[in-house]
Amino acid sequence: MQERKIKLVFSYRGTAYHGFQRQRVLPSVQGEMEKVLKRLVGHEVSLAVSGRTDAGVHARYQTAHFITTCGIPGERFVQAMNTFLPDDIVVLESKEMPFDFHARYDVVEKTYRYRILNQRQSDPFLLDRAYWVRVPLRIEQMRAAAEHFIGTHDFTSFCSVRTHVDSKVRTIYEIRIDVEERDPYVKGQGQDIWLTFRGSGFLYNMVRMLTGALLEVGKGRWTPEYVKDMLASKSPSVRKVNVPPQGLYLWDVKYKE
Amino acid sequence: MQERKIKLVFSYRGTAYHGFQRQRVLPSVQGEMEKVLKRLVGHEVSLAVSGRTDAGVHARYQTAHFITTCGIPGERFVQAMNTFLPDDIVVLESKEMPFDFHARYDVVEKTYRYRILNQRQSDPFLLDRAYWVRVPLRIEQMRAAAEHFIGTHDFTSFCSVRTHVDSKVRTIYEIRIDVEERDPYVKGQGQDIWLTFRGSGFLYNMVRMLTGALLEVGKGRWTPEYVKDMLASKSPSVRKVNVPPQGLYLWDVKYKE
Repeated sequence: MQERKIKLVFSYRGTAYHGFQRQRVLPSVQGEMEKVLKRLVGHEVSLAVSGRTDAGVHARYQTAHFITTCGIPGERFVQAMNTFLPDDIVVLESKEMPFDFHARYDVVEKTYRYRILNQRQSDPFLLDRAYWVRVPLRIEQMRAAAEHFIGTHDFTSFCSVRTHVDSKVRTIYEIRIDVEERDPYVKGQGQDIWLTFRGSGFLYNMVRMLTGALLEVGKGRWTPEYVKDMLASKSPSVRKVNVPPQGLYLWDVKYKE
Repeated sequence: MQERKIKLVFSYRGTAYHGFQRQRVLPSVQGEMEKVLKRLVGHEVSLAVSGRTDAGVHARYQTAHFITTCGIPGERFVQAMNTFLPDDIVVLESKEMPFDFHARYDVVEKTYRYRILNQRQSDPFLLDRAYWVRVPLRIEQMRAAAEHFIGTHDFTSFCSVRTHVDSKVRTIYEIRIDVEERDPYVKGQGQDIWLTFRGSGFLYNMVRMLTGALLEVGKGRWTPEYVKDMLASKSPSVRKVNVPPQGLYLWDVKYKE
């Protein structure tokens, strides 16, 4: 049988899963998708993804590929998979690709967004999808600190100590901080803050640790200069601040043409 | 001890509850709130609400009152209750009121909104908070049909047969249909449609049955004139179309000054 390569684009709400990666027992996004694919194509399938996401992290536009010998037309996988997938995973696009396409190695740009609910009271509708910060944030200071991350840097100070890669050099093209006023009619409603990180790629926990550092600045605990020095120190043992997964979204993955 | 009347304004996500109303065994919003209040004030508390909501229905701005002999200042209940309430119920305001205030009888206007996700694929982030309709909707036809509901009418044809009230006459001030384009970058993403109903009050299941009728029009199955005739027939046995609870939000409750 002819082997073909199929690319999938999909969204998921990470709340119910122990991350993207297949687990022996615990539910995972990859596990659910491979189970459905096996049923459709009649053989074991292994998904190659653009990059894993941690437990509780969401994806708006994740990309993966798989190899199959089945005859199902590439674009048919959208409806076929959505029929069997749980409601919190939705396939948006499927397409047969040239055999030299690779969902991980061909990535040229990734965008992550981190959502912060900044107001005195919580919001029952944003529980699993934003990080609630009660104290007011100094947005201009956060923007000043974010400037130091733009460009090509060694991000050793801003990734998990469990990061095992050859190089911790990455390029960040843009960090944008958008502030939206929430429903001003409802008392205690404040701001919906979205941090957008666009770069060549990100290390393990890097977006959450950059966000953690920017939040320390926003709270007035760290200065933008302190963050600049942290970056320059390239130290794995520098004090890192992580933020919870429910605010993080893999927003977009771009490939070379 | 002096009896005082405290007004509460609160939001809840209805997904985990069998409606607002206290149940003997099943979880309810009222049950959770009364349990927390009892703990705070040291006596049994009974909440009088602006109106019940069904299982799975949400509230952005629900209002209730209770009577207490405790000495806690009225505005302190916000933080005190939020400390003990589950995450999907949040108190936004609390205030001591004159003793003649009543959270149900003094209502002069209510607003409900119904959210429809109108696109080919589902969205994992709107599962419990919108009704997914795949087929394209004829919005202008829906707006034409909605016009017939505006004003003072007997809504016998658009409420549950289990509605036990003296009069089924209600006044609708406004029905607005807002259409927002969703993320056009993501394939298969369509429209976020919000139906807003503002009126003197609504009968049991009335907003959902009005929405159901408007959706039949939007799908081209009913004409606006058919809906007009349904209303005029004032018949409890007319064919009604209900829509699921997860799209419905009690949006606002207004009181006489």
